[in-house]
Amino acid sequence: MKKLIALYRKPDDVEAFLKHYNEVHLPLVEKVPGLLRTIVNRVTASPMGGEPAFFMIVEMQYADAVSFDAAMKSPENRAAGKDLMGFARDIVTLVVTEAE
Amino acid sequence: MKKLIALYRKPDDVEAFLKHYNEVHLPLVEKVPGLLRTIVNRVTASPMGGEPAFFMIVEMQYADAVSFDAAMKSPENRAAGKDLMGFARDIVTLVVTEAE
Repeated sequence: MKKLIALYRKPDDVEAFLKHYNEVHLPLVEKVPGLLRTIVNRVTASPMGGEPAFFMIVEMQYADAVSFDAAMKSPENRAAGKDLMGFARDIVTLVVTEAE
Repeated sequence: MKKLIALYRKPDDVEAFLKHYNEVHLPLVEKVPGLLRTIVNRVTASPMGGEPAFFMIVEMQYADAVSFDAAMKSPENRAAGKDLMGFARDIVTLVVTEAE
């Protein structure tokens, strides 16, 4: 299982962020070919105390490296990436992972 | 689905870290009552360039808030937490999430 994980720090305007995420960004993400499943994890607590390091952690799952690489090169992924940079550039961190 | 997510930055000694994680820490984690599944995601790339922000992202899944809260209060979880602070205090960030 290959995943693109997007870690979002807390946006200044939570309501506007969630509205854009749910109504614009997520539909763009879900058009990316090969995407198996998107899991939106909302952060509810910080067990080590203080403010949580992140506000939301989103997993975009792909079956394997081949489908992941094809997805990343697709026009649909470019559109989702462009949208991401427009509304969340300052608060998002992206990593690619492989589950053991 | 409730998750405890542990985000590990890159350890100085990767080999020693993985040895302790796999041989000592993970077995302690897997003793925590109510834990459904642990998914160890190794970071393989940083799509935005530069060094990846994290080295490993581990998801510990629980069915719901009731089983999660009971797990957090268990002696097994205290043992896992104590071990975590011993080998990864400086590189780990923990968050609790709820999937939408």
